[in-house]
Amino acid sequence: MELLEKTLKSIDDVDAKWYDTAQKHLDNLTKPLGSLGRLEEFARRLVAITENKSPVLDKKVIFTFAGDHGITSEGVSAYPKEVTQQMVLNFLRGGAGINVLARHAGSEVVVVDIGVDADFEELDGLVKMKVVKGTNNFAKGPAMTRDEAIRCIEVGIELANGYAKKGFKMFGTGEMGIGNTTPSSAIASVLTDRPVSEVTSKGTGITEESLKRKIKVIENGIKLNKPNPKDAIDVLSKIGGAEIGGIAGLILGAAANKIPVVIDGFISTAGALIAYCLEPKTKDYMFAAHKSVEIGHKIMLDKIGLRPILDLDLRLGEGTGAALAMLMIEAGLKIYKEM
Amino acid sequence: MELLEKTLKSIDDVDAKWYDTAQKHLDNLTKPLGSLGRLEEFARRLVAITENKSPVLDKKVIFTFAGDHGITSEGVSAYPKEVTQQMVLNFLRGGAGINVLARHAGSEVVVVDIGVDADFEELDGLVKMKVVKGTNNFAKGPAMTRDEAIRCIEVGIELANGYAKKGFKMFGTGEMGIGNTTPSSAIASVLTDRPVSEVTSKGTGITEESLKRKIKVIENGIKLNKPNPKDAIDVLSKIGGAEIGGIAGLILGAAANKIPVVIDGFISTAGALIAYCLEPKTKDYMFAAHKSVEIGHKIMLDKIGLRPILDLDLRLGEGTGAALAMLMIEAGLKIYKEM
Repeated sequence: MELLEKTLKSIDDVDAKWYDTAQKHLDNLTKPLGSLGRLEEFARRLVAITENKSPVLDKKVIFTFAGDHGITSEGVSAYPKEVTQQMVLNFLRGGAGINVLARHAGSEVVVVDIGVDADFEELDGLVKMKVVKGTNNFAKGPAMTRDEAIRCIEVGIELANGYAKKGFKMFGTGEMGIGNTTPSSAIASVLTDRPVSEVTSKGTGITEESLKRKIKVIENGIKLNKPNPKDAIDVLSKIGGAEIGGIAGLILGAAANKIPVVIDGFISTAGALIAYCLEPKTKDYMFAAHKSVEIGHKIMLDKIGLRPILDLDLRLGEGTGAALAMLMIEAGLKIYKEM
Repeated sequence: MELLEKTLKSIDDVDAKWYDTAQKHLDNLTKPLGSLGRLEEFARRLVAITENKSPVLDKKVIFTFAGDHGITSEGVSAYPKEVTQQMVLNFLRGGAGINVLARHAGSEVVVVDIGVDADFEELDGLVKMKVVKGTNNFAKGPAMTRDEAIRCIEVGIELANGYAKKGFKMFGTGEMGIGNTTPSSAIASVLTDRPVSEVTSKGTGITEESLKRKIKVIENGIKLNKPNPKDAIDVLSKIGGAEIGGIAGLILGAAANKIPVVIDGFISTAGALIAYCLEPKTKDYMFAAHKSVEIGHKIMLDKIGLRPILDLDLRLGEGTGAALAMLMIEAGLKIYKEM
């Protein structure tokens, strides 16, 4: 709790004078004013976030947080829970979507076991910071205790602090967790005050029948646990999941360290929304990578006030959208520095 | 004319069986079916266009065609005509937007003088294939002769054939020409059968007052020259410009050589629409890089049947959007080959 409180206190507003400084430079380049559209926005924001007239993005890292979800017992996912563990091993072998796209974007990938319901040996590239062995089924009671939820957030903060010290200049978020569109929709519903049916869709590809059940399960889970929408930690603890908490913490830590952070898709944005509710100043440190096909995604982005960079019908997660968006953000910086 | 006719005859339909071959492979990767959205589409299309189960994109090139426009005498642009020549020199020095973004995307840039109203010396990196020294003012009469229009298209075809022989695997289009949103809007109006006011906006940033004049100038130019919408060469010759013809030719040549071609923004899409009207099969070889802020852009893309990859409020041209889109298309290929 101490680390979380200290971090929240240390997050500053982004100083608007840097936007002007950057825009003046952009307006002196050989091009019609504003003609590079959002690339100019990215450059302005990087200058302002880092308080540096000439930001550097040489070291980038995407954190893929993995966790399991008790709610999968309710038949809300097309895949069995065991796939979370298998995918973690797949990430470590370098052959998954996130590995390919992070290489393409020149970013490292760090895989974090924050809540997988399986024991891993010591494995190269795996960060073992398990808080829970899967969350509890929130259809039956709270997914985590309040202390566990805080610990998940603090894991994210610790990683942000550690990688800031190592000289990383940009973070991306990613996740793996069978069933995790379910808590994400639940969080979206509670924190944006929208009916569950308006923020819930088919995840990795369930049937219409299963979608109806998924909505019912979420509605009942919310009724049972009564998460307090004014208290994002209460929402996280009652609904889960561990990886969503880790992402929220990473964002808080990024903001505290004045490091830009690229939010991947639907699940990552549930984490971002928790970070935003804990400290709205975090918004100015976030880049929304893309618009997922999950219907609740845009509603959460609107609530935070973020406009997605890409719209490529992605729904894989892992951090894949964040990797692609990094290429666009970096393009903005290169325009700013090399033209 | 011979080269154009020969090229048109040699353009084949993309064979749909390759889409299935590629999709089968994609569906065997460790991810939910279809979860990589448009990245999967890009991979499928690359396989089908190149008729290769394992396409290679190691050599990419963006052609930036430069030309001047007599219509600038009518006060349709915020910049004087001389800027076209200055920007060509800027491209050759490597400091322009297209140079920065092409480097970012790992693409070469070839600058083509196809119609600049100035004489260049022999300069490293400049391809001198001038057809006209600027077009004539289409407010007063046809912009070019029919032979000149055909020659512009053939310049594009010759470049496509030459760079195909040199082993380039992907082309991008780009352009520079003060005033060239004006002929592009005129082409859009004639070939999509929409009122000029619905396809005309502010280009590099003219005033409301100038926009009204621009629309009037285009309407009058069309009335005077009566371009035949069933004859794309007639449209190109009467309206111009040379660089738009070059782009149309490059696309025809790309299709004839089974090379994917990335269409940049508004002006490039006017060229693409001419290529499409000459041979609709070209559509399947094109990727639409982005949605420009020019209002006529989406109307032309819809007419061809292309969905843009990016939407970043760009309106610089030069090929900048094509460079950025290449990064996304290549991401699709890497997913296909490396997962």
